[in-house]
Amino acid sequence: MSFGKNINISIFGESHGKGIGTVISGLPSGIKLDMDEIACEMRRRAPGQNNLSTTRKESDIPQIQSGVFEGYTTGTPLAAVIANTDTHSKDYSILKSHMRPGHADFAGNVRYNGFNDYRGGGHFSGRLTAPLVFAGAIAKQVLKTYGVTIGAHISQVECVTDARFDAVNVDEKQLQSLLSKELPVLDDTQIEFMKEAILTAKNECDSVGGKIECAIVGLKAGIGNPFFDSLESIIAHLAFSVPAVKGISFGVGEQFAQLRGKVANDSFHLVQNNIKTITNNNGGITGGISTGMPIIFETVIKPTPSISQEQKTVDIQTNTETTLKIEGRHDPCIVQRAVVVIEAIAAIGVLELYR
Amino acid sequence: MSFGKNINISIFGESHGKGIGTVISGLPSGIKLDMDEIACEMRRRAPGQNNLSTTRKESDIPQIQSGVFEGYTTGTPLAAVIANTDTHSKDYSILKSHMRPGHADFAGNVRYNGFNDYRGGGHFSGRLTAPLVFAGAIAKQVLKTYGVTIGAHISQVECVTDARFDAVNVDEKQLQSLLSKELPVLDDTQIEFMKEAILTAKNECDSVGGKIECAIVGLKAGIGNPFFDSLESIIAHLAFSVPAVKGISFGVGEQFAQLRGKVANDSFHLVQNNIKTITNNNGGITGGISTGMPIIFETVIKPTPSISQEQKTVDIQTNTETTLKIEGRHDPCIVQRAVVVIEAIAAIGVLELYR
Amino acid sequence: MSFGKNINISIFGESHGKGIGTVISGLPSGIKLDMDEIACEMRRRAPGQNNLSTTRKESDIPQIQSGVFEGYTTGTPLAAVIANTDTHSKDYSILKSHMRPGHADFAGNVRYNGFNDYRGGGHFSGRLTAPLVFAGAIAKQVLKTYGVTIGAHISQVECVTDARFDAVNVDEKQLQSLLSKELPVLDDTQIEFMKEAILTAKNECDSVGGKIECAIVGLKAGIGNPFFDSLESIIAHLAFSVPAVKGISFGVGEQFAQLRGKVANDSFHLVQNNIKTITNNNGGITGGISTGMPIIFETVIKPTPSISQEQKTVDIQTNTETTLKIEGRHDPCIVQRAVVVIEAIAAIGVLELYR
Amino acid sequence: MSFGKNINISIFGESHGKGIGTVISGLPSGIKLDMDEIACEMRRRAPGQNNLSTTRKESDIPQIQSGVFEGYTTGTPLAAVIANTDTHSKDYSILKSHMRPGHADFAGNVRYNGFNDYRGGGHFSGRLTAPLVFAGAIAKQVLKTYGVTIGAHISQVECVTDARFDAVNVDEKQLQSLLSKELPVLDDTQIEFMKEAILTAKNECDSVGGKIECAIVGLKAGIGNPFFDSLESIIAHLAFSVPAVKGISFGVGEQFAQLRGKVANDSFHLVQNNIKTITNNNGGITGGISTGMPIIFETVIKPTPSISQEQKTVDIQTNTETTLKIEGRHDPCIVQRAVVVIEAIAAIGVLELYR
Repeated sequence: MSFGKNINISIFGESHGKGIGTVISGLPSGIKLDMDEIACEMRRRAPGQNNLSTTRKESDIPQIQSGVFEGYTTGTPLAAVIANTDTHSKDYSILKSHMRPGHADFAGNVRYNGFNDYRGGGHFSGRLTAPLVFAGAIAKQVLKTYGVTIGAHISQVECVTDARFDAVNVDEKQLQSLLSKELPVLDDTQIEFMKEAILTAKNECDSVGGKIECAIVGLKAGIGNPFFDSLESIIAHLAFSVPAVKGISFGVGEQFAQLRGKVANDSFHLVQNNIKTITNNNGGITGGISTGMPIIFETVIKPTPSISQEQKTVDIQTNTETTLKIEGRHDPCIVQRAVVVIEAIAAIGVLELYR
Repeated sequence: MSFGKNINISIFGESHGKGIGTVISGLPSGIKLDMDEIACEMRRRAPGQNNLSTTRKESDIPQIQSGVFEGYTTGTPLAAVIANTDTHSKDYSILKSHMRPGHADFAGNVRYNGFNDYRGGGHFSGRLTAPLVFAGAIAKQVLKTYGVTIGAHISQVECVTDARFDAVNVDEKQLQSLLSKELPVLDDTQIEFMKEAILTAKNECDSVGGKIECAIVGLKAGIGNPFFDSLESIIAHLAFSVPAVKGISFGVGEQFAQLRGKVANDSFHLVQNNIKTITNNNGGITGGISTGMPIIFETVIKPTPSISQEQKTVDIQTNTETTLKIEGRHDPCIVQRAVVVIEAIAAIGVLELYR
Repeated sequence: MSFGKNINISIFGESHGKGIGTVISGLPSGIKLDMDEIACEMRRRAPGQNNLSTTRKESDIPQIQSGVFEGYTTGTPLAAVIANTDTHSKDYSILKSHMRPGHADFAGNVRYNGFNDYRGGGHFSGRLTAPLVFAGAIAKQVLKTYGVTIGAHISQVECVTDARFDAVNVDEKQLQSLLSKELPVLDDTQIEFMKEAILTAKNECDSVGGKIECAIVGLKAGIGNPFFDSLESIIAHLAFSVPAVKGISFGVGEQFAQLRGKVANDSFHLVQNNIKTITNNNGGITGGISTGMPIIFETVIKPTPSISQEQKTVDIQTNTETTLKIEGRHDPCIVQRAVVVIEAIAAIGVLELYR
Repeated sequence: MSFGKNINISIFGESHGKGIGTVISGLPSGIKLDMDEIACEMRRRAPGQNNLSTTRKESDIPQIQSGVFEGYTTGTPLAAVIANTDTHSKDYSILKSHMRPGHADFAGNVRYNGFNDYRGGGHFSGRLTAPLVFAGAIAKQVLKTYGVTIGAHISQVECVTDARFDAVNVDEKQLQSLLSKELPVLDDTQIEFMKEAILTAKNECDSVGGKIECAIVGLKAGIGNPFFDSLESIIAHLAFSVPAVKGISFGVGEQFAQLRGKVANDSFHLVQNNIKTITNNNGGITGGISTGMPIIFETVIKPTPSISQEQKTVDIQTNTETTLKIEGRHDPCIVQRAVVVIEAIAAIGVLELYR
């Protein structure tokens, strides 16, 4: 189903079908689109860039079908299709019967009564995040006209942790500096440790998870609602549409559980006559509404379920227990590729609520 | 705005207005409502039950206006109103200008251009969770006819932690056993420690936060969607509509970040010829869809922002820095009262997606 | 279910339940409500005003529960409840089994598996238009701040027809002049003929239908959408939620079928340098979007199904053919009472799309 | 924006952009698609079939991108793209400034601040009904599995009127017989008169409108809702998304205005122990819910606004009055091509509400 009341986004496609894509309606007209920037965002998600991700090469060039005229958004639905190419090289028939642990194979089979396209995960494939990134890239360009910038960094890979954003002072400049790094982290000394964690898992035919922290800066106060479409609700709703996301928290997140109110509360003061909070433990949101401070949230990404080790499973055609070893080129870690996806859903969520 | 496509829920009211309530449409007809059970659910949230919560007494009896006929749901919109009584005893005028740290006062003031009812938090008041609990109690009774039971326990209060649900074996019986305890915990030895943490904070004019873990048992496989209305998306959307919720995670949650794929993946086996997972790290959801295993999620509750200590703030009428000490009877901890609220939103979310 | 993405309206209640009402969310904050005007609108719909409608007296005073503070809208959901009083005086049990021709009794019984409240039509009762009128009265007051005025007249009762609006020149003044007339018509000479048609039907234990033409003036160009939420789609969607409405057309409506393009097309010219159409056959809407000319539409109202004559029907409890004579006080014509209801849905529709 | 809660449909594209298309989500899985039948439906709308419509040839072959696997619907979003070909042969630049009377040029220009694609009507083009017909063809195939058939006929062209459906007895066989006729009418003697009316208008560089009557047979009782998603509301909502539709009525429609209740009411009787109505003036719907009788509705289609005659208009770039003669190949009548479009929206509407 589609997402959103003010903007409205549909995502379609299966990993090995003809094409994947998105339709975005409700965009304002007259936004000049920077196609290079969109291509750049697509590359941030694309596989095959280095030895940390799968060596698969995907053609991820979105063909815009509508909604753009002479370089500007028309305000009518913007549709883009990404053709699936080179998808017939492999025999996926074992996935018809052997449910991959950690994947949606079994749940999807039940949900769709066995009619879902099982090849490469079908509609559940991480490949479906490509149109999300495209939609996010558009949303970011709209938000830029409102002074809003979004950026994220890898805050954890397995046991390697990065620093956290300074929730009060994070700014556009810092967010942009992340784009030029080998891995987007705040503390560059962690890059090698993260790479090592990923490559070690890869060598052991295993995978690792992690966390991504995202910041939205420049968002004015007053965006969001109490019931039911809080800024947190909308961002979380979208975040949990991203395969592999299993948790989300705002501001200091989990730490809230052990804080006292006196410490957790963000007191107010004046900064150049503007009302700001001294701390920003709430991650820029109270009562579901932006406070004018940076929005800070962190998502938990589970390790890639595809691993080249033998795992126990069930054959649903014979209803017998069996084992499965998933062959092929897998991502030992998708956290680094998911960074731009998390930014994308943040952009879509903010655009949905912007007024 | 309202929530839901299949069921549709509106919540209305301000803490000190005439009444609060809810309209629930899309309910199936012919569900026999157990009014005693609904009253029991309302009491679980009500304040003034012991020295752990505020001594305020609220009249929380929902007056059903429509949608029930001769004891059964009619299928037409079910509306209920809870009158606000005894609300004029206090002078709230300072809240018109002095923004309470940690509360939605400032964000709400900006959102509504200063026209929001600031008395007692207005529409942002925790009191608005009363109609949510009512709606949840109805949803639970519908879900019971589908064999689904929902229960939750306090998994943390400040630094005191309870045991976690056995994600594979948690059952209806265990969930019901929680209802008769002084505090709903799995490990009874933690009750006194939790009470002590709360009362210590109370004595120090402070407050504490915590966590609530919730289980949904008996839900068949195949409920939910990949994009955008995953089971996780819908539950998270609703959870973040509950004041004070700042985080949510499914299954082993945060732990996923440091797990290897081999460990995190839930392998399949057969139990009496039914396909089950051996572990349930994914909390009963893959690809946004239920697997038939118990749904497990945990929410983070921030400490009550209302504390009787002086805090820095800003007077928005004079735009000057000032301080504020919030007088009155506050909850030193709302985690114990929020347990039934979390169950309620879980029930509403599952009912929305049930098919 | 509820209506609307920008504003969102729920209607609840049954004719003989505890109360009926509405929840309206998404209203702008800071609109000063004129309660006298709201009461005046409610009276326009209320029965028992003269011998043309039922002599039933209904207490139609909406009790606002929330969303209004110190006389202004807060921007949070505005809920109102109208208590049902004096509803137990009659025995409705025959309606449990004997389906009234022309009413929703049978369709409703199937839809709700026999659990619907059948007394007085239950949720299908025309009484449910009272909360619609209330919501419309609020919407009108918001629209007034945008310069938009809405008014309607009876364009037909049985065979008596009124003049039609001048689609180019109809203005606020003309619309307001309709309010003070015995029956809201453009050609006062038709009032007596309409009354006679209604009273003749009444004397013959029968009822009559008619048409209502509505005008929306002051609406700027550019409101509405091509797919799917055209201004026509939204108004029609709401119009067909009103019991007894069986048709709607915009501009010259049915006449379009026999017009040539040359005649039907509204050519453009300049009026004080503003682009206007010379004619307004399209009723102020092309491509689903307002042109800046008055919006003109007409609805068809079927005759009241409740008549005090014997009619053939089926007893659904015994599944046998039988007859039914509906006793009690019925409206021989509801067209005059429906005028304000049509205005209300027009106001809600425009508010939904206003930007 | 998209349509629907249970099924959800997006339409995208501009007449002269890269492609047009649709995304349909919420379809049941496991529906075997008959591609020949879909192609047949597309041809019913396609231009250039005879001298009654434009001689333009459009490539209307929908390329399915997703949602179909091995010939069956997967249950995941079904997307289809129709490439626009041969679209650069004409100079449309005059349409940038000269607003065509009767078209959406002016309203669209205001709505989208001048950024809309004006070539060939852009997103407002009748060409956008091609993806609607595709979506309708899919919906029809789903409905066929529920025993529901939909068909329509031209009930009027200018002053030539066809017979009306027998609202009680219309059946699948009659609906299918319409498909093989030169023009889909009930009374074959009217075909020549209709053709003559169209060709006369064509010769006079003018165009004609008409009406289309649609029947939905085999729909069980109990489908639809009272507020707000009545069967009439949903069908009307969709109908007014179709360019050129200016009116819709159900059952005897306009006639209701002058009928007495005694005549208008549809009395019940038993047919082979099933409850049916003796007449079907209400067009199979009471209280917004299907009665089990055929659904009957009629739409009014305005004459094609594109005519090769000089018309008065305004140049929006110079803000001066001017004239415009629209050159090119136009449809002198689109009623015959719109028949399948009306069937399509009926199918989508019923599928949305089916339960």
